[in-house]
Amino acid sequence: MRIAVLGTGIVGRMLAGKLDELGNEVVVGTRDPDKTMASTDTDYAGNPPYSTWAGEHPGVTLAPFADAAAGAELVVNATNGSASLEVLSRAGEQNLSGKVVADVSNPLDFSKGLPPTLFVKDDDSLAEQIQRAFPEAKVVKTLNTMTAAVMVAPDAPGTQGTVFVSGDDNGAKSEITELLHSMGHDDVVDLGDLTTARGAEMVLPLWLRVMGSLGNPIFNFKVVR
Amino acid sequence: MRIAVLGTGIVGRMLAGKLDELGNEVVVGTRDPDKTMASTDTDYAGNPPYSTWAGEHPGVTLAPFADAAAGAELVVNATNGSASLEVLSRAGEQNLSGKVVADVSNPLDFSKGLPPTLFVKDDDSLAEQIQRAFPEAKVVKTLNTMTAAVMVAPDAPGTQGTVFVSGDDNGAKSEITELLHSMGHDDVVDLGDLTTARGAEMVLPLWLRVMGSLGNPIFNFKVVR
Repeated sequence: MRIAVLGTGIVGRMLAGKLDELGNEVVVGTRDPDKTMASTDTDYAGNPPYSTWAGEHPGVTLAPFADAAAGAELVVNATNGSASLEVLSRAGEQNLSGKVVADVSNPLDFSKGLPPTLFVKDDDSLAEQIQRAFPEAKVVKTLNTMTAAVMVAPDAPGTQGTVFVSGDDNGAKSEITELLHSMGHDDVVDLGDLTTARGAEMVLPLWLRVMGSLGNPIFNFKVVR
Repeated sequence: MRIAVLGTGIVGRMLAGKLDELGNEVVVGTRDPDKTMASTDTDYAGNPPYSTWAGEHPGVTLAPFADAAAGAELVVNATNGSASLEVLSRAGEQNLSGKVVADVSNPLDFSKGLPPTLFVKDDDSLAEQIQRAFPEAKVVKTLNTMTAAVMVAPDAPGTQGTVFVSGDDNGAKSEITELLHSMGHDDVVDLGDLTTARGAEMVLPLWLRVMGSLGNPIFNFKVVR
């Protein structure tokens, strides 16, 4: 499948790498490919610049957001939550229309210090904001309840948890569920329509505190039943 | 241990019954014991009136909130979140002073329809509101992330999950952790100070949607790591 992964951070890279490894045709979307490739900065967590990662993943191409989305059958929003609406606008409404948009972002607000709060919650969600902004897209919220390393290695010992999907389009959820299975996610729980993304997003404050308590992000939530 | 369980609903009853079974001296607190015992109403879920339950649990006594709290070493807030501050005021600040108050309630707001939203979240929590209202109490948030039947039978197949504790007093958290162990909770995660209760309370919207998806509340969240 032709997949555009929007975002060059660690989440975008890990998802792009895994989806490429699984045989998909993956293009990563960024604002300015030349600038992204020229950057020599490590990120806040010490991850190497994008060009280093790109060199290790020759099968993954890099393109402006709009070009990446235009050629894709499936678009993954792997940007920071605070940038998601702007990035998807740059990707272009016409390039999202009729397509499944997997939203793995979180509405984290770092402006008031740590831990972050949520800039939308409870009676709305970032996923719903995206759906309203792009009504012809088929938004599916998923994967936002775990760290990137667990998103792409959910069958590793100690992280065999649950992944949630929320969305208004059942066909889109089936497609994403199939993709999740291909990535090794055995336990997919369909929460219901896109309003249920409120629940999936509101688990972030607990996730952050569990990470603080355990001292590392390599864990997952499992619905035991 | 002498334990006061405030609240005669299903959560209060289940906790009182379990703590009684474990050999504790349990008194249930209510507004007006005569009225509680005289009621013949079933609740919204079809649970029998309190008097029926009391007849099956002769070891558990019933007392006004203040009397129940006065004689207790440990107080459990098992009331509806919207009533918690008022009920604890009726229990009396002096009767809570210096004591561990286990808060198992959730700040659910049903006024805007179903599913409920949270009347406090993200930059504050019900547990912190209680702590501020009763600064001499040692508030520990716990058990609010699962249904009552799972609180008291956490070792039943299919519900072997994680229970969280949040609180500013480490001694109080140790005491609650010991009590949780006695109830069969094997996996207790100390999230940190009482601000971490925000995370535990904000998991409720996800909990409600999982319940909707599974069709029943007999499940638990497990932190797999």
